[in-house]
Parts: sequence; C-alpha cells; structure tokens
Amino acid sequence: MADFKLHCFAQSGNAYKVAMMLDLTGSAWEPVFVDYFVGQTRDPAWRAEVSEMGEVPVLEHRGERLTQSGMILDALAEITGRFGGRDARERREIWRWILFDNHKFTSYFATHRWLRTFAEPKGHPEVMAFLAGRISNNLGIVERHLKDRPFLLGDRPTIADLSLAGYLFYPVEETGYDLDTTHPAIAAWADRISELPGWRAPYEAMPARAAVAA
Amino acid sequence: MADFKLHCFAQSGNAYKVAMMLDLTGSAWEPVFVDYFVGQTRDPAWRAEVSEMGEVPVLEHRGERLTQSGMILDALAEITGRFGGRDARERREIWRWILFDNHKFTSYFATHRWLRTFAEPKGHPEVMAFLAGRISNNLGIVERHLKDRPFLLGDRPTIADLSLAGYLFYPVEETGYDLDTTHPAIAAWADRISELPGWRAPYEAMPARAAVAA
Repeated sequence: MADFKLHCFAQSGNAYKVAMMLDLTGSAWEPVFVDYFVGQTRDPAWRAEVSEMGEVPVLEHRGERLTQSGMILDALAEITGRFGGRDARERREIWRWILFDNHKFTSYFATHRWLRTFAEPKGHPEVMAFLAGRISNNLGIVERHLKDRPFLLGDRPTIADLSLAGYLFYPVEETGYDLDTTHPAIAAWADRISELPGWRAPYEAMPARAAVAA
Repeated sequence: MADFKLHCFAQSGNAYKVAMMLDLTGSAWEPVFVDYFVGQTRDPAWRAEVSEMGEVPVLEHRGERLTQSGMILDALAEITGRFGGRDARERREIWRWILFDNHKFTSYFATHRWLRTFAEPKGHPEVMAFLAGRISNNLGIVERHLKDRPFLLGDRPTIADLSLAGYLFYPVEETGYDLDTTHPAIAAWADRISELPGWRAPYEAMPARAAVAA
C-alpha cells in the first residue's frame, strides 16, 4: 500500500514539486486525480473536506493531510531524511528560497503560463506584459545566483531546487519561455535536476485529462 | 545597543510584518532606512551587500543577515520564544498560512496597493481588475476561516497572523479596500492584533520619506 497519496493533476506545477520529491526519494505514492478543469477545487464540499484554500497539492500521510507545496516539501525532507538542510543555517537558506519562490518566482511564471495556455478567456495583453516584466526580474535574480553554483545551496540539490524548478519542466509551448537561449545557468540547473535518479516529467508523474474539458 | 537592525521603509508591509513582531515582543531594535523610492534596492552594490533578491526586509542580528519576512518571523519566534508554534502540528499550520500569504494573500493585495498608489505610471485598468479578482478570492478564504476563530490558529496570535495582516494596517486611501464593511471577520481580527501590547502602526514604527521622490 502506498505511504503517500497526492491529490494532484498533471498541469499543476505546484503539485509536481511534491510528485518530483516523492519520485526522487523513491517513496511509495499514488496520485488522487483532482479534476480541476471541471471546477473540483472550487466545489465547497471539496474545500470543506480536502483543502479550505482550494488548491492542490494536498498530501495524505498516516491520516494527516498536508497542504502548501513548500510546507509539504519541508515535511517530506524530514520524513525521508533527503534533500533537507543539514543545519539551522541551511534550513533558513532553504526557507528563504522557497518563500521567494512562492512570493515571486513560481507565482508570476505559473500565472503567466496559466493565462497563456489554460485560462478561458486568455489573459489580457496588458496583464501578460505586467507578468512578463516581473518574471524577467525574477529569472535574472536566479540566473545570477546559479552562475557559479550547481544548485541553489551549492553542491547538493535540496527541496529549494525542487520548489523553484517545478514549473520549468513544462513544455515551451505551454510556458512561452525557452530558457536554453535566454538563461543558460537556469536551463543547465534544470537539466541537472532532471538527471537525478527517479526523476519523471510532469505528464509522466501525474494523471491528466485534456486541458480544456468539453 | 539594539539587538536587531531592520533594513526597511515605512511603505513596505513586508518589512512592517517584522517591525510589528519586534514591537510585540518588546525587542530592542532600530531601523536602517532603505531609500526605495530613489532605487536603492535596485542598486547592484546594495544587492551584492545586503540582499541579492533586491528586497526588504533584511534583519541583522549577531552578525547574521536574514531575508524574507516569513523566514525572519520564524527565526524571531525561535529567538524570542513568542508567537511561534508549540508543537510540530502548529508549526506546520503556521507555515501553511505564511506560504499562502506569500503566494496569494499579501502578494496580490500588496501589488494592487503599489500599482494604485505608489507606482509611476499607475497600473493599467486591466491589470488592476486582474489583481482585484485574485484578492477577492483570497479575502474570501481568510474571512471564512476567521468567522469562528479569533486568530488563524485559534485562541492565540502567532506569526501567521502578523504575516497575513501586515498590509491591512495601511490606510484605506492607499489600499482601496475598506474591509470593515466587506469583510467584518478580517477587520475584527486586524483590530485584535492592533490591541496587543506594544503594537504600532506602520508609519509610526518605520521611517519614511515622501512616497514620490523629487
């Protein structure tokens, strides 16, 4: 029986951050498909039972339900003893990057992809330009940081890497960003993560239905 | 001599979250004014020395520099023994809310205020409408949660409350949101926080220059 159940759908990069962690730690897990595109996360019953914040991922483990990808990653680092900080300084460094990711890095990148590819109607050009400006600044900060380090904390991958890189594994056709040409340090870092044993791409790791439901 | 130095400016609600924590814990602290409105946080020298992420707050304590308000709040809860989680479950609950705050609650509310009041040029109407839609959803989630609890975790205020409430203490003229009429549970919760001993409003706690520099 699976130790972990992950409420998820393949298009959610925040769910993918957790799926990737479960894969890379060789954890026994199974997905619970959430049918986002027909409104499941907006259903009051789902919110009351699974997540009041109306979001995936939700991780079930030993009768407990955990939400928020950053918190789940931290819990999994503790449970598995992998990809966490080795001391107080490293743990703070990890949180610093995960918070930056939630506040700035994933948030604008993910919203831009969503409004570009999945939303109906698509994002207004002014909104897309606003998001693109923020994304450019945030990509620049991470590119600079990764220029002389293989991973965010240095030589070793941590949950901070899994959090920030989560959305970078979706196809260019969805994100609109080809980082190979514009941000080589970020692209090389994502490649290093994808070469870790057990790694799977988002659409291999999690179940999906067609993006736009009938 | 002050135990803590906080790099901040009064208009930053993320800096204010930390200033509020320092005030409420009776910590000896002094502000280091960051002249955001003339571009200090975009200066490469400032980024190299103070914060590569280009943001306040930055807290100096015993030779260490901490960044990201959520991480600083967590560190201060540990250092002061106040407003933190009492067990693993509470600590996870706190992180869950702080992550939600960074990803959703503060981020859209603060950006909306910024583009409405301080940015030049002001935000495009389509961008403002986009942000307002997100804000409405997030306010609804918190309003529902606070309907039957005085604080986010229950009877006792924690750093989660200080994080989410930070931007709610700015004047309606800046935020454009009068929550007294639209979100009474949130407004009452903010009032409860402002009644805690030591509390000061943002423009009392931190230094400011005129918002728009000459």
